[in-house]
Amino acid sequence: MTANAIAVDVGGTEMKAALVAVGERSAEPLRWLRRPTPRGADGSATAERVVAAVAELVAELRVDASVDAVGVVVPGAVDEERGVGVYSANLGWRDAPLRDLLAEHIDLPVSLGHDVRAGGLAEARLGAARGMRDVVVLPIGTGIAAALLFDGRVHSGGGFAGEIGHVDIGHDELCGCGRTGCVEALASSAAVARRYLARTGTARTSAEVASAVRAGDPDAQAVWGEAVDALAKGLLVLVTVAAPECIVLGGGFAQAGDLLTGPLRERLDGMLAAYHRRPHLELAELGDTAGCLGAALLATEGLRAK
Amino acid sequence: MTANAIAVDVGGTEMKAALVAVGERSAEPLRWLRRPTPRGADGSATAERVVAAVAELVAELRVDASVDAVGVVVPGAVDEERGVGVYSANLGWRDAPLRDLLAEHIDLPVSLGHDVRAGGLAEARLGAARGMRDVVVLPIGTGIAAALLFDGRVHSGGGFAGEIGHVDIGHDELCGCGRTGCVEALASSAAVARRYLARTGTARTSAEVASAVRAGDPDAQAVWGEAVDALAKGLLVLVTVAAPECIVLGGGFAQAGDLLTGPLRERLDGMLAAYHRRPHLELAELGDTAGCLGAALLATEGLRAK
Repeated sequence: MTANAIAVDVGGTEMKAALVAVGERSAEPLRWLRRPTPRGADGSATAERVVAAVAELVAELRVDASVDAVGVVVPGAVDEERGVGVYSANLGWRDAPLRDLLAEHIDLPVSLGHDVRAGGLAEARLGAARGMRDVVVLPIGTGIAAALLFDGRVHSGGGFAGEIGHVDIGHDELCGCGRTGCVEALASSAAVARRYLARTGTARTSAEVASAVRAGDPDAQAVWGEAVDALAKGLLVLVTVAAPECIVLGGGFAQAGDLLTGPLRERLDGMLAAYHRRPHLELAELGDTAGCLGAALLATEGLRAK
Repeated sequence: MTANAIAVDVGGTEMKAALVAVGERSAEPLRWLRRPTPRGADGSATAERVVAAVAELVAELRVDASVDAVGVVVPGAVDEERGVGVYSANLGWRDAPLRDLLAEHIDLPVSLGHDVRAGGLAEARLGAARGMRDVVVLPIGTGIAAALLFDGRVHSGGGFAGEIGHVDIGHDELCGCGRTGCVEALASSAAVARRYLARTGTARTSAEVASAVRAGDPDAQAVWGEAVDALAKGLLVLVTVAAPECIVLGGGFAQAGDLLTGPLRERLDGMLAAYHRRPHLELAELGDTAGCLGAALLATEGLRAK
């Protein structure tokens, strides 16, 4: 059985939308649209503008297509069950009843999801971890937060689960959250750039630091090594608590590929004990389409549940 | 709808068995039996003797009763899906195909479960966390391992999930597992007894140390305070990764009641940030019947799945 869904991934600066044919084990984008994310005077005005813009994208993608359902994913804290955007630092809203607002504009079933968890669902069902049941998908960007999938279903913990970037691994550097010891204070792409600058006085992106590691720059190697070490300690905590079969690394940082996974796998393997499950370590496969594909999966899951 | 299950909790020294009437939201033990756990010359002989003893208990409890299914829970590493006792340090078996062995002796549907996870299921459905969906049940005894229940279902992670006792919280004391920094090296009942002895030269159980804390013994207070601090750090990791609504504390250590939950709640609350879900902290209600009641739930769940 195939259903057609319209999926929209609302980002901080851009909205990606697609018409997606969803099958039992597939999600095929048939057509894509991209638009800048509109802003209002405050969070609540932004929520209304975003809703109107999503409705326009949906109307445009419905032309000449038979569509069964709509899935929309947004960043920040999201309560999927109530369909509420609880909080977004980027978009400014608080407790925005997005699913109800969308339903006023769109005469199709609408699901609301969280961008990272929806992307994780897509990687687990269609991407790097397909066929596996207990999966952690970890996009590493400015921050580090994981999507947890147990027995093939998203575990959101009321929207709070997976904050692995803020696990205390015991170091003295200050995190953006105001504490010391957080994984993401050493291992996010922002941290790598910031720490390379502090060490050398030279401003470089994390991708440029990765190139410098390959070129043999000892400062880059030191910063990179500390990032890998912090990340391995964070993954060890995930493994100890949640015992995933597979950990999928995504986000900008994972574009370093083997430069990340090679030493990370070695460091993690060296820390595992008999009481740990040994997880597969994979690179994400769906790139920046994961959120949209996950939104399409959520949309059609909503159909099945009805 | 009510079903009758026979539930057996195989412990290291004693087997508890019960005839249990299981309803939609209830599990009522109608009759109990207790027997010493039999031993063989090696793990495989022990597995066979345990299976025979369980079959006898089942036969005895079936007299004059209409029974629909049997649930058996065992300690150690358990693969519920394959019905295998993967490993038990106490009972010595490795990869014992317990469910198949039991099925040879018992002409009723048989489920095999893990004692701690089954007990957690019982606390979540019938005990201290009833009505809540995302629950961690943490028995604190010689070691510390958690049962994780997400959306009302046990997450076993292939039998490896919930090893919170071995999360590294950054201290120098050696754990039984050969590492330093583990939560259970400071916070298990065995650790409290061992550390009190090391500090004072006086041998006391953790329950006696708890009494000494109440009586104002400064050594007991120091050891207790460090245990609470370690446990709070372990719970913080659980909260950060898994975001439970409720954490249920059980095992011998939790019999200290308010002496444990009071300072633990305070210490944990003081560490929570905006990105953490604030969990309820409860004491287990089902005591040493939790494993058996959980086995009864597993037995009748098996029925429904058929």
